[in-house]
Amino acid sequence: MRDVVILGVGMTRFGKFLERSLQDLGREATWAAIEDANIAPRDIPIAYVANSLAYQLTELKGIIGEHVLGASGFFGIPIINVENACSSGSTALRGACLEVASGNYDIALALGVEKLFCADTAKSAAAMSSGTMYAKYGFMFPALYSMSLKHWMEKYHITREHFAKVTMKNSKNGSLNPRAQFRKPLSMEEILNARVIAGPLTLYMCSTMGDGAAAAIVCSRQKACQYTSRPLIHVAACELVSGTVFYPDKHHEPIGTHASRLAYQKSGIGPEDINLAEVHDGMAPAELIIYEEMGFCKEGESARWIDEGVTQITGKLPVNPSGGLTAKGHPVAATGLAQVAEVVWQLRGEAGERQIKNPKVGLTENAGGWILDDNAACAVTILKK
Amino acid sequence: MRDVVILGVGMTRFGKFLERSLQDLGREATWAAIEDANIAPRDIPIAYVANSLAYQLTELKGIIGEHVLGASGFFGIPIINVENACSSGSTALRGACLEVASGNYDIALALGVEKLFCADTAKSAAAMSSGTMYAKYGFMFPALYSMSLKHWMEKYHITREHFAKVTMKNSKNGSLNPRAQFRKPLSMEEILNARVIAGPLTLYMCSTMGDGAAAAIVCSRQKACQYTSRPLIHVAACELVSGTVFYPDKHHEPIGTHASRLAYQKSGIGPEDINLAEVHDGMAPAELIIYEEMGFCKEGESARWIDEGVTQITGKLPVNPSGGLTAKGHPVAATGLAQVAEVVWQLRGEAGERQIKNPKVGLTENAGGWILDDNAACAVTILKK
Repeated sequence: MRDVVILGVGMTRFGKFLERSLQDLGREATWAAIEDANIAPRDIPIAYVANSLAYQLTELKGIIGEHVLGASGFFGIPIINVENACSSGSTALRGACLEVASGNYDIALALGVEKLFCADTAKSAAAMSSGTMYAKYGFMFPALYSMSLKHWMEKYHITREHFAKVTMKNSKNGSLNPRAQFRKPLSMEEILNARVIAGPLTLYMCSTMGDGAAAAIVCSRQKACQYTSRPLIHVAACELVSGTVFYPDKHHEPIGTHASRLAYQKSGIGPEDINLAEVHDGMAPAELIIYEEMGFCKEGESARWIDEGVTQITGKLPVNPSGGLTAKGHPVAATGLAQVAEVVWQLRGEAGERQIKNPKVGLTENAGGWILDDNAACAVTILKK
Repeated sequence: MRDVVILGVGMTRFGKFLERSLQDLGREATWAAIEDANIAPRDIPIAYVANSLAYQLTELKGIIGEHVLGASGFFGIPIINVENACSSGSTALRGACLEVASGNYDIALALGVEKLFCADTAKSAAAMSSGTMYAKYGFMFPALYSMSLKHWMEKYHITREHFAKVTMKNSKNGSLNPRAQFRKPLSMEEILNARVIAGPLTLYMCSTMGDGAAAAIVCSRQKACQYTSRPLIHVAACELVSGTVFYPDKHHEPIGTHASRLAYQKSGIGPEDINLAEVHDGMAPAELIIYEEMGFCKEGESARWIDEGVTQITGKLPVNPSGGLTAKGHPVAATGLAQVAEVVWQLRGEAGERQIKNPKVGLTENAGGWILDDNAACAVTILKK
């Protein structure tokens, strides 16, 4: 298999854009990635397009990628539409990387695009909860998260203040990110005193609806030199697994642990080598769990990590410098590729006010699916300068 | 890239199965393919799962493959859910083949599963038409087909009797196929006197709703010898393109022509080498158009072909020996893999009463998407004994 590099990335700002279509969002991210990659659109011979909820929320009921890329002027190329709930974006990246690694193509586009806001907010909310079979019983995502946390919180003396610290860090990071949906740095008091969604989770600890798109153009290492003289960003691993998000009973290996183990094996890179990570903080507590699943810290140590500021932009291992899902926003299928875009910008030193000092290796963790069920997916990607 | 073979195939009968779930249908096809391949379930390290309309018609709103394969006992493997309207099944096969050809895995599963019937038939019909943006103006698929035919019919003196002959042939073939949804051989009179859906199309010339699943297990040629001593069926090409299904104005190359041209180039096999084909006769006239797009006959010659019986089971180039979409049934995302299953059985000499005499090379053509729009997909696969 050949070495694969990220040649260009692009994304829209995430937010509420009632007047913008899926095609419009997709076009902006795709063309930003094309410009960033310094290629021509005709250089793209294949595309993987990720979308999760357009079927429920827009008039597009199928072959989303053909519609979105068709509106961007693409014609005739193979388009593979992929879906894996919140990990759809990384699933598209994985496919694009395989096309290039295998030698099938020299260049491939991965696009994640999602439009969650529509005029009828109740319809959007229902679609957002349709990912769980338990929604019909009133258990929406925050409730499911909440239920899964109790035992873990007791065992390791984790409090809601720890979750608030995650949100505080991410809201501060988001305030430095011009593409973030929410740009207000939040205080401990604001977070803890906000409306309770499902105890112990308050409003600001939960990611919410967003519209947006993100794209990455991958290329063989050899071919990349034709287009750029910038340092190349190598895709050292992009590993996808299925399973269950949380295993409170630990009968099985958690899905994040499984995917990161494979990614570390594949890349020969260990958790101690990671300089920054973008992870799937669908709810603030998830970020702490992910510290442990990625092997950044030992089981039970994540609370101490957030207390000590290890994962702040200035810390030893910054996590979610973009603001993460809770501040940057979470347009479902765009998220995985937005994580990749952030890591690429950080590795290139192009992250502006939120730039981390000289990172060499970054990781993204992108999980999706039905909590407390055996039907979820997780992808871990390792990018290396 | 490594040689890829089809190690096993399986499918459910197609039909109306109100009492069966998507999981149940998927399990039957998957386990039939596993048994046919003579492997153990644990030998499958990755799966591509195609589905198109479950989002609209079942309670599963995402990560369909994780749900379906989870219910079949699979756990932990990467699952890539793909969608490309009616060509979703072939899109899954293409992905599975790339995993094996690239050396990423030795074995991969491609599953297409669809459940179109639900208690509320109006809901099913609406979902079936949701593939076209014109449905809201009353132009459902038969109407769009009908409109696109007039010019072509006049130019080449093609009549509704020619379409009826296609249906007559396919209904006869379907009557010999125990897995077909419709098993009654239809007479010319029955076809022409049936209810007009959209002139010149009568009821029996149109494919309709169906439930079902089909699966293929692909394997590297080298590894395949461990599992079977049967003649290996080689995937000589599996090429996917995007574009438009019909181009009455011929400003662009038709999507079927494009995909078949790539498949012939890739395989070094020409249309004259093909011994049988399973093609996407969503409506009977499409089969005639496909004869020309695949290069089986010249433009304008398809009517003569059907008149002369060239594509009957006993003809020079049998097309749709399974019964095709109109007789075998068309559970959208299952169709592409059901076509592959039929070609595999024919090449192995296992097609029972509908067996073609000693075929060596078979082709499948699987198109999907929005007619009269630039948003469709087509895959052509060539299988060789």
